[in-house]
Formats: sequence, C-alpha cells, structure tokens
Amino acid sequence: MAVRVGVIGGGQLARMMIAPAVELGLDLRVLAEGEGMSAQLAATRVGDYRDLETVRAFAKDVDVITFDHEHVPQEVLRALVADGVEVHPGPDALQYAQDKLVMRTKLAELGVPQPDWAAVHDTAELQAFLDDHGGRAVVKTPRGGYDGKGVMVVADAADAAAWFGDFDALLVEELVSFSRELAQQVARRPRGEVVAYPVVETVQRDGVCAEVIAPAPEASDRLVRVAEEIGRQIADGLGVTGMLAVELFETTDERLLVNELAMRPHNSGHWSQDGAVTGQFEQHLRAVADLPLGDAAPRAAWSVMVNILGGPADSTIDERFPAAMAAHPDAKIHTYGKASRPGRKVGHVNVAGDDLDDVVYDARAAAAYFA
Amino acid sequence: MAVRVGVIGGGQLARMMIAPAVELGLDLRVLAEGEGMSAQLAATRVGDYRDLETVRAFAKDVDVITFDHEHVPQEVLRALVADGVEVHPGPDALQYAQDKLVMRTKLAELGVPQPDWAAVHDTAELQAFLDDHGGRAVVKTPRGGYDGKGVMVVADAADAAAWFGDFDALLVEELVSFSRELAQQVARRPRGEVVAYPVVETVQRDGVCAEVIAPAPEASDRLVRVAEEIGRQIADGLGVTGMLAVELFETTDERLLVNELAMRPHNSGHWSQDGAVTGQFEQHLRAVADLPLGDAAPRAAWSVMVNILGGPADSTIDERFPAAMAAHPDAKIHTYGKASRPGRKVGHVNVAGDDLDDVVYDARAAAAYFA
Repeated sequence: MAVRVGVIGGGQLARMMIAPAVELGLDLRVLAEGEGMSAQLAATRVGDYRDLETVRAFAKDVDVITFDHEHVPQEVLRALVADGVEVHPGPDALQYAQDKLVMRTKLAELGVPQPDWAAVHDTAELQAFLDDHGGRAVVKTPRGGYDGKGVMVVADAADAAAWFGDFDALLVEELVSFSRELAQQVARRPRGEVVAYPVVETVQRDGVCAEVIAPAPEASDRLVRVAEEIGRQIADGLGVTGMLAVELFETTDERLLVNELAMRPHNSGHWSQDGAVTGQFEQHLRAVADLPLGDAAPRAAWSVMVNILGGPADSTIDERFPAAMAAHPDAKIHTYGKASRPGRKVGHVNVAGDDLDDVVYDARAAAAYFA
Repeated sequence: MAVRVGVIGGGQLARMMIAPAVELGLDLRVLAEGEGMSAQLAATRVGDYRDLETVRAFAKDVDVITFDHEHVPQEVLRALVADGVEVHPGPDALQYAQDKLVMRTKLAELGVPQPDWAAVHDTAELQAFLDDHGGRAVVKTPRGGYDGKGVMVVADAADAAAWFGDFDALLVEELVSFSRELAQQVARRPRGEVVAYPVVETVQRDGVCAEVIAPAPEASDRLVRVAEEIGRQIADGLGVTGMLAVELFETTDERLLVNELAMRPHNSGHWSQDGAVTGQFEQHLRAVADLPLGDAAPRAAWSVMVNILGGPADSTIDERFPAAMAAHPDAKIHTYGKASRPGRKVGHVNVAGDDLDDVVYDARAAAAYFA
C-alpha cells in the first residue's frame, strides 16, 4: 500500500506537495483550515490544527505527519508522538522554528554564527542593548511572526513597550550591516542522511521575499562551503527532518550570520521545482517518508523565482494568465488557487537558463503581468 | 474561476495531468471507469464513457472535455458537440485516431508518406496484397488495437480469417524495412498555434514501448525537419487539438513513413515531463484549454525514458522504490498507482544529462530495480 503522508495545513506549500506526491505514488492527505484552501484537492479533513482531537483523528489514517506551517502547538505535537505517530519534523526540532529565543539560545550553544542578540524582559533591558549597539536594533516577538510581522526596527525602547505586554521576553538583535541576504536549504531524513542545495540569493521587499536567484551570484567557493556547513550543522544539531531553510545575512565584512529558520519547504526554494533535479517539495516528501533523498543539483546554470503578489481586487490571476504565457513560453507559472488580495502571495514564476541577465529579465517580465 | 478541464478516462495519462493542472491552477476533473483508478485523486465521477447520459452529466460541470484514451464512441462525442460542449480533440479529428482505415485514407489524401497499404475485405484480397509485397505483410484491425493487440504479421491470408468476421474490412500494410522507430509530437491549439517537440527514438519490445531517447540520436537536420513537417501537416490537416503523437518508421533507405497516430499525451513523450521546458501533460492541458503553448525545447542534451513493467505478482513497486532511489538519486521515478501484473505498464523512469551513454545506463539501471 502506498505510504500515506498527512500534511497539517492547506496552504500553498501543501498544494505544491501534491504534484510530486502523485508522481512518487505517495498518498497525500491534508488537514485544511477550511474549505477551498490552496491544497483543496488533497484535503481529506477540515479542522483546527490547535485541537488535539481533530489532529489525532487526522493522524489515525496516515503513516507520517508533516506540515505546511510551523504553528501546530507543542502540546499537540507531543501528544501525537506519545500516541506513537511519526511526526517530521518532530516537536523537539520544531520548537526552534516556533520560538526565536529558543532558536537563538540553541544556535549559540552549537556555535553557529549569528547576530548579537539578547532576551530582554522590559524596556530598560532593551534600552541597554540599544545603547551597546549604536542606538538601533531589531526587536522580534519570539513567536507568531512571519513575512515581516512581529519584527520592528527600534531606536527608542519605548517603541516596543506594547509587545512586552504580550511576551515574557522579546528577542533583540543587532542591526546587521549586510550586503545581501542568502538562503541555504538542506533536507534531512530521520536516519540522518543530509542533502544540501546550492546557497541562493534572496531579495526581500517590504519584509516579504520578492525574488530568488539560484545559485547565489558571485559566491566564492568558501562562501558556498560555509553556507552548506551551517545548513548541515543546524539540521544535525537540531535534529531536523524534512526540508530546512536557513536565512542568512552576508555581511559587508564577508561573514554569514543566521537570520531565521524554517522547517518545511520555503519560498527561497521554489526555484528548485523547475531548476533542480529534485525540487524541494519532492525532497521534503522523500525526507519525511524516510525515502532516499534525491539529487539537489541545479538543472541549469541559473534559475530565478519571482513571487506573484496579489494585485487590484478587480482582476484575477486567471485573466492575466494567457498574456503572460503567450509572451513567456519558457516561464513556469505556478498558481496557488488563492483569492487575490493586494500584497498576498498568490503564485510565482520560475525561469531557468544559461544567461543570468536574460533569466532575471524573463522571470520579472512574466511576473509583471500579474502586478 | 479556474478553467475546468474534464478528462474522460482515469488511467495514467489522466493521472499525469494532475501535477501540471495543480501548478497551472486548472480545475481538473476525471470521469473514471471505476474506483481506485490511476487518476483517482482527480476523479469526480465514476461511470461508463460509452454511455451518453453519463458523459453528458460529467460534461455539464466542465468547460472543456479531453481524453485519457481514444475509445469514446463517435456518437457520444458528436452528441456532446451538438450540446455545445468544447471537446478537444473533437470527433472530426479523433476519428482518425479511432479507425486506422479512415486514418490511412486521409493521410493518403494529404500526401503524407506512409507504407503501402490497402483495405481488404476478404482473404482473397489479402492474398493479392501479400503476393504483391513479397509474401508477408502486417494486418491490423481498423479499431480496438493498442500495445501490439489487433496487429499481426501474416504470410498466409488464412491466418487473418477470424478477424474478417469482426470487421467489414481490415487494414493491410507492407512490412516496412526500417532501421528504427521514431516519434514526432506536436501540440495544437483550437486557434491553430502549433508547437513541435524534437523527434525522438522509440524502442519497442514485444509490441510495447520499452524505451525512448530524446532527441533521436544521430538525426540529421533534414530528418529532424521532415519529421516536424509531417507532425505539423497532420495536426493541421486533421484539425487535431491537444497533443498529437506520430509514430514513424525510419526506413533503411532513409525515408520517414507514418506508422500510427495518437491524439493525447503518449508514452513516447513521457521524457518531456523532466526533460523539456514544457512537459507533454502541461502542454496538452494548455492546448485543450486554448491557452498559449509552452516552450517544447529540451532542458538537457539527452533525456531517456524507460518504462517500468509489472514484475512478479508478489512484489509491489512500493517495495522496490527505496533501493532504486538510493542507487539513482538523479532518476525521476513516476508511478501510476496501478496494481502490478507481469507486463503491465506501472510506471517509468526519466533521466536527463549531458552524456548519452551515462543517461541510458542510469535510466535502465534504475528501471531494472522494478523488473
């Protein structure tokens, strides 16, 4: 019988697991938050992922549980493990993606390079950190942040006063002087096998990933090696299973510092669907099902991914499709089946080729049809 | 709203449309012959495709009808068209893929190169053809043949006597002295746009496609051009919409002769899933939904597809998966979710790369795990 992989969460990451699951012959089942989600086609149950009994009922009919997002509460995850359910990544690993203070503490123990940081419990402690770091710093809520939410640059500790009411402690990090942002992805099986993707450059706009270039242009052999080592060290050190994305700053003095972690397929890896021998969604499924990992090598000299963000409410992605396809027959357009709202990620475009300038131009031009 | 594409037939061709449909944001719906078919995930209805009311009810909820196979009766297709349903390919085109005598007659009209052939109504007429063609020929039933069924090499007209009982006339063709078999695929939109894939070499074993090499090795520019012209001429001349596969003989005197036609994604094009910018299943969906066609260029110097045929009844493809994946991390293994029976097509392996010998070896070795 086909291995049954249960995905908690019905967003676009679950949706993009459907294609490789079909080809691999895995039986993909999704616990969706509601009707009509991105991953609707594979949704076998609708319910609240914070409710243990809902999740338990879903888990009963699958061989392994994995995730579209990192929001399933630890107590739910730990109850599943106690029930004997295979959960990948498991709660011990996932806690580091759920709580940024726990993550910073652990990475410090592992000796992984990261920005200066501190746990601050009140505005006085925050002000002390600011005073020590040139008067400005990044404050983050330990939990609940994504796509720029729960993150604030402050020059005055009073700006973060409201957040102290919601959390015991906040994370404060030095404002890193970086030349660019990179992302390193690795996949790790439960039995320990790790495969690394080439490090990529990510371009953020308004705190949201806008564009990814794979591999990172003008990356020295040393940079590529160090990024891969960081990815492997974190995957092993944290016991990650499935895909791990490590967001990195490349500093102006040529160091790599860990910014954020994600333990699932990640926007920085969408290029691999069309640009790598094994795309990240296939790789995640292989890893969580404890199947041998696939080749993560690029299939072209350059791959570029450009996100499609929702445009005006009166137009739909479907209407703009034909013109984009006609003008860019080599572009791979991926849609998430989501209603378009300004700024919402509703799809992305991948282009691969030999000439970086051409590939960047082509991917941006195709995505621009949806802007 | 997403375009709803209805596929009649729930086999592996419908199954392999699921992945590109999800990424393109098309709403794929399948009328399956039964429960648990290959394309089960997208099956919205189970029923008999020969029954007009069943097909009508299915067609009511889709924007366009296409096919997993060519067996839907003409009267059902024509009733749908009379109802105002978009059907691609339509009955006027599909008749040429359904009846080999009708096909041979039409190709003769178009002046497309084909083997010597005749419609024979009895053993006397067949014997006359044999006498004119060196005493041996290929006899085919006009309808109902596939994968070597309904095809027989005869040296004595009496061998075909039984078949004359079932059909008004049989097709007889000269036994072509060929050096190899090729296949040319093209896609055509309802509005006439045509895109051609590179001609490929197909290797048959026991009348079943075993292996495909893309593009066809040692093909001269002239051969590539003539094959493409034949594909375009047939697509235009027969009014094909969707994917068309033209099976060709390359003769020992370097001519190309049309062997068979298929108006759907075809085994000779499975390599394109991983080896072309636009795979044939995506291309078929684009064409039948009348969306702009994608780039059909290869993504690697060489792509090789090897079919996985069912092995001993006591082993399943799932059990052999991990060993094959471990030994061949660059192989793309596609499974059809079908019970394994000796000789049944249950999946295929695609490998792409720069060195043909390596690619052939790798694809065969990966597929051999399932033998």
